[in-house]
Amino acid sequence: MEAKVTRGGHDTIRAMVWTTEGLRLIDQRALPAAEQWLLLTNPAAVAQAIREMVVRGAPAIGITAAYGVVLSAREHFARTPAQWRQSMEDDMRMLAAARPTAVNLVWALQRMRECAHRIAGGVDPVPALLEEASAIHAADVAANRAMGRLGAAFIPPGCSVLTHCNTGSLATGGYGTALGVIRRAWHDGLLRHVYADETRPWLQGSRLTAWELLRDDIPVTLIAEGAAAYLMKLGRVQWVVVGADRVAANGDVANKIGTYSLAVTARRHGVRFMVVAPSSTLDMQAPDGEAIPIENRPETEVLTLSGQAVAASGARAWNPAFDITPAELIDVIVTERGVVEAPDSARMAALNG
Amino acid sequence: MEAKVTRGGHDTIRAMVWTTEGLRLIDQRALPAAEQWLLLTNPAAVAQAIREMVVRGAPAIGITAAYGVVLSAREHFARTPAQWRQSMEDDMRMLAAARPTAVNLVWALQRMRECAHRIAGGVDPVPALLEEASAIHAADVAANRAMGRLGAAFIPPGCSVLTHCNTGSLATGGYGTALGVIRRAWHDGLLRHVYADETRPWLQGSRLTAWELLRDDIPVTLIAEGAAAYLMKLGRVQWVVVGADRVAANGDVANKIGTYSLAVTARRHGVRFMVVAPSSTLDMQAPDGEAIPIENRPETEVLTLSGQAVAASGARAWNPAFDITPAELIDVIVTERGVVEAPDSARMAALNG
Repeated sequence: MEAKVTRGGHDTIRAMVWTTEGLRLIDQRALPAAEQWLLLTNPAAVAQAIREMVVRGAPAIGITAAYGVVLSAREHFARTPAQWRQSMEDDMRMLAAARPTAVNLVWALQRMRECAHRIAGGVDPVPALLEEASAIHAADVAANRAMGRLGAAFIPPGCSVLTHCNTGSLATGGYGTALGVIRRAWHDGLLRHVYADETRPWLQGSRLTAWELLRDDIPVTLIAEGAAAYLMKLGRVQWVVVGADRVAANGDVANKIGTYSLAVTARRHGVRFMVVAPSSTLDMQAPDGEAIPIENRPETEVLTLSGQAVAASGARAWNPAFDITPAELIDVIVTERGVVEAPDSARMAALNG
Repeated sequence: MEAKVTRGGHDTIRAMVWTTEGLRLIDQRALPAAEQWLLLTNPAAVAQAIREMVVRGAPAIGITAAYGVVLSAREHFARTPAQWRQSMEDDMRMLAAARPTAVNLVWALQRMRECAHRIAGGVDPVPALLEEASAIHAADVAANRAMGRLGAAFIPPGCSVLTHCNTGSLATGGYGTALGVIRRAWHDGLLRHVYADETRPWLQGSRLTAWELLRDDIPVTLIAEGAAAYLMKLGRVQWVVVGADRVAANGDVANKIGTYSLAVTARRHGVRFMVVAPSSTLDMQAPDGEAIPIENRPETEVLTLSGQAVAASGARAWNPAFDITPAELIDVIVTERGVVEAPDSARMAALNG
């Protein structure tokens, strides 16, 4: 298995591949040191892969969970053909609980549930469910390409950008959200330079964003999060471009911890702030950011690296995985349905209506 | 050699010890995994130790350089008694160039130079120079205790604080600047909780601040820098307390990269911001922060973590060691001579006059 396939246009990576044996995922915990592929053949393995961050990124989690439902149906239909639907519900609850903040997970599972309900009794559900999961996957890539185009339209020639976490082919079905905009802007010759936060504690920036951009021939300069405000102060970036794990009805955005700090410091320096998120990331049930649950991850992610202690023995850590960026600090939210400048409840509702 | 000595009051650590053999330094690169002491017997070894961050922290660098001058004089007086003064000047230039941002280094060397000029020809200069270096060291500890008292007076009971980098016994002659305030406030029972940024890329927070606070029985919770703004948003801290590598005449402060971001986000949340710096850190020749040289450190510090490569191969990094926090974002600068609230040029001049 090899993540690099020929697609051109700075877009050569796919992190999840369905095969007749099951779902193959590149193990993002092992990158960039090693490119290891895991074969997942049952839904429990899929839930574990999501929980343990073999795969991460809101859209990628949703797509992975959709394929997990296919594996669930395959397993239960083979075992007890009359009851696959009920057994699948248990697996869907397990999958939904694997990561609490990303709403794409819930959205993808709901689509799979609706598809399952349309399947007649006694019929093998796997082909229809696989078609649905593949459609979700393909639609995500198409949405990312659309967002890439819409977002890049905001980037003036000669612009430099800063991004956070990993929002690329590894975090989505392919191409990426914020990295999709960066891919497109780079392809169009608009970008002078791409900076990426290393993104502690999991180092998605250093490990994943740098890996995929360099593979796709886009040079990148990493910075520690602490250097972002100074980078802006020196006028070295004009846009911050990030993804989202969930967008509330008023335009508040939950995204990787550190995003909020970037938004506050960007506003101070007149650096513009773009959130790139497919409509599956919108949660119109959450009136604002306060309603979004924030996952706390284990302390060891801050205290250790690759099993090696870096912090003094006895130290504790606080490790929220996400934070909330209020809509007022966001210049534009880019979705595949269109863009929302200066987002608020009315403009978000108009997009969604 | 053992860093822990009995002093009580949450103050048991000294990182540099003069012995008849030479200067002993705890190797801060090896902490917290191992407590290793190095014996430095000549000025070149001292310059290298400063450059390679065996010792770091503006006051500690100044004191170390002062002892380096003693070693220089000892070496040159033994070799060519008539010319020790000229040879010492070459070593002082080497020591001054070891780290460019901290002004304490220049200040300490100037004090040693003035002391050297008072020594009569033909007289062994070592006793007088050692007395001067020891006086600089002792005065630093005394200044830190004074600042601890002055700074803690701003901390209301039940307050929680966030600090950045390491400003403690390891970064100074002992007791610390910002950590001196935290030591004193903890001793006085004022603090509910101490948070510390892990402080990428060098992890001074995780490796050094956590080590020394835990050794001195002060519990600490580490966070990634990206979590600081969210911590403030949740109302979990009321003060940010940091040190300084150089303070300009208008109150602008150069300090560890990431400090500026904390100041911007603190202001947004009504969190107060304290800089604790001995008067040797003031540079009245620098009219403002623009005049302070900012050291760029090697890219490998960002691309690796504890010696292990973490970033994708081929990635570049931008690694400024310091940033500038403008005076307008600082609520109070604490020095051993007194405090300056809402610092500006006039108030700073009044302190210094």
